[in-house]
Amino acid sequence: MYAQTTIGDFLDRLGSKASTPGGGSVAALSGALGAALVSMVCNLTVGKEKFKDVEPVAQRLLNRADELRAELTKLIDDDTKVLGDLMEAYGLPRNTDEEKQKRTALIQERSKIACGVPIRIARACNHLRNLTVEGAKVGNPMAISDIGVAVLMAEAGLHAALLNVDINIGAIKDAAFVEGVKQQVAQMVAGRSEMKESVLAEVKSKL
Amino acid sequence: MYAQTTIGDFLDRLGSKASTPGGGSVAALSGALGAALVSMVCNLTVGKEKFKDVEPVAQRLLNRADELRAELTKLIDDDTKVLGDLMEAYGLPRNTDEEKQKRTALIQERSKIACGVPIRIARACNHLRNLTVEGAKVGNPMAISDIGVAVLMAEAGLHAALLNVDINIGAIKDAAFVEGVKQQVAQMVAGRSEMKESVLAEVKSKL
Repeated sequence: MYAQTTIGDFLDRLGSKASTPGGGSVAALSGALGAALVSMVCNLTVGKEKFKDVEPVAQRLLNRADELRAELTKLIDDDTKVLGDLMEAYGLPRNTDEEKQKRTALIQERSKIACGVPIRIARACNHLRNLTVEGAKVGNPMAISDIGVAVLMAEAGLHAALLNVDINIGAIKDAAFVEGVKQQVAQMVAGRSEMKESVLAEVKSKL
Repeated sequence: MYAQTTIGDFLDRLGSKASTPGGGSVAALSGALGAALVSMVCNLTVGKEKFKDVEPVAQRLLNRADELRAELTKLIDDDTKVLGDLMEAYGLPRNTDEEKQKRTALIQERSKIACGVPIRIARACNHLRNLTVEGAKVGNPMAISDIGVAVLMAEAGLHAALLNVDINIGAIKDAAFVEGVKQQVAQMVAGRSEMKESVLAEVKSKL
C-alpha cells in the first residue's frame, strides 16, 4: 500500500529500473495531490462567517474532493498491481505452441484489465478538474492559488493517465474493445482544453 | 522532513486547513516525481547492448535527473519552512506603532525569502523539462511513455511554482526586487511553451 510508503521510498522505487511503480501510479498521485489541495481550500472556506453564502457549495466540493483523493490514492496501488500482473504474463515461457497461445491469451486479458485503471484515473482527474472550476469561484481568496495548483495537477494526472491508456490499447487486438476505450477518452477530453486556462485566469485575477 | 513522511500522511496534512504543506511543496513534489521517472527510463537504457550508442547521453541524463530529484525533494521541505516563517510574521501583534513597523518589516523580509523557494523549484522543473527533450530521443522505447509523464509533471511543477512566485511578489513593496524576479521568470518561460507538446509528440510516435 503506497499510502503507507514514505515519499522518499516511493521516489527511489520510481527512479529504479523496477517496472513498478510507473507513470500510471504517478498520474494517480498527481490527481490525489490536486484533490487534497481542493480539500484544503474548502476547509479554509467552510465554517467562516464571511463565506456563509457559499458554504453549501464549498461543503459539497470538500466532500467530493475527499472522495476523489481516497479513490486516487487507491488507484496508485491498483495501477502497480495490474502492471505487475501484465509484466508477469509477458514473462511467461513461449517454447511450445501451447505455451505461446496461453501467453498471448493472458497478455490480451491482462492488457484489458491494465487499461481499465488509467481510464479510472483519467475519469477521477477529470472530475477533479470540474471541481476546480467551482473552487476558483467560491474558495477562500487567501488560499486561491492552491486551486490553481490543483487544476495543474489534475490536468497533468489526466494526460499522464491517457498516455498510459494509449500504451495499453496498442497491445490489444480486440477492435471493439479498443474502439470503446477511444470513445470514452474522446468524451472525457471533448471541449475541455480551455478549462485549465479559465481556472488559472480566475485564480490569477484573485491573487 | 517530508521524504520520511508517508504519502497518506502528506495527503492528509495537505488536505487539512493547516497552512503547510501548501501548493509550493506540491510543485516541488511534482518535479521530483518527474525527475524520478526520467531516472527510471535512463536506468532501463544504460548498460544495454542495443542502446550502447546513446549510453553516454543516457548516463548524463541519469546523473542530472538524480541530482534534480534530490534538490526538488529538499525543496518540498524548504517551501514549508519559509511559508511557516512568513505565516508567523503575519501572526505578530500589531497593537502599537512599533509593533506594526516590526511586523511589516518582518513580512517584507520573509516574503522575499519565501519568494526564493518557488523560483528555485521553477528553475529545477525547467531543467527537468530540458532533460525530457533528450530523454524522449534516447530513452528505452519500452518505457518511453514515462518520459511523457515526466514532462507533464515538470510542466505542472513549473507553473505551480510560478503561481507561488506570483502570490509572494504581490506582497513585496521593493520594486527593484519584484522587477528582478519578473525578469528571471520571463527568461524561464520564454519560447518554451511548445516544449511539452514536442516531447509528447515524440513520445507518442514511439508508443
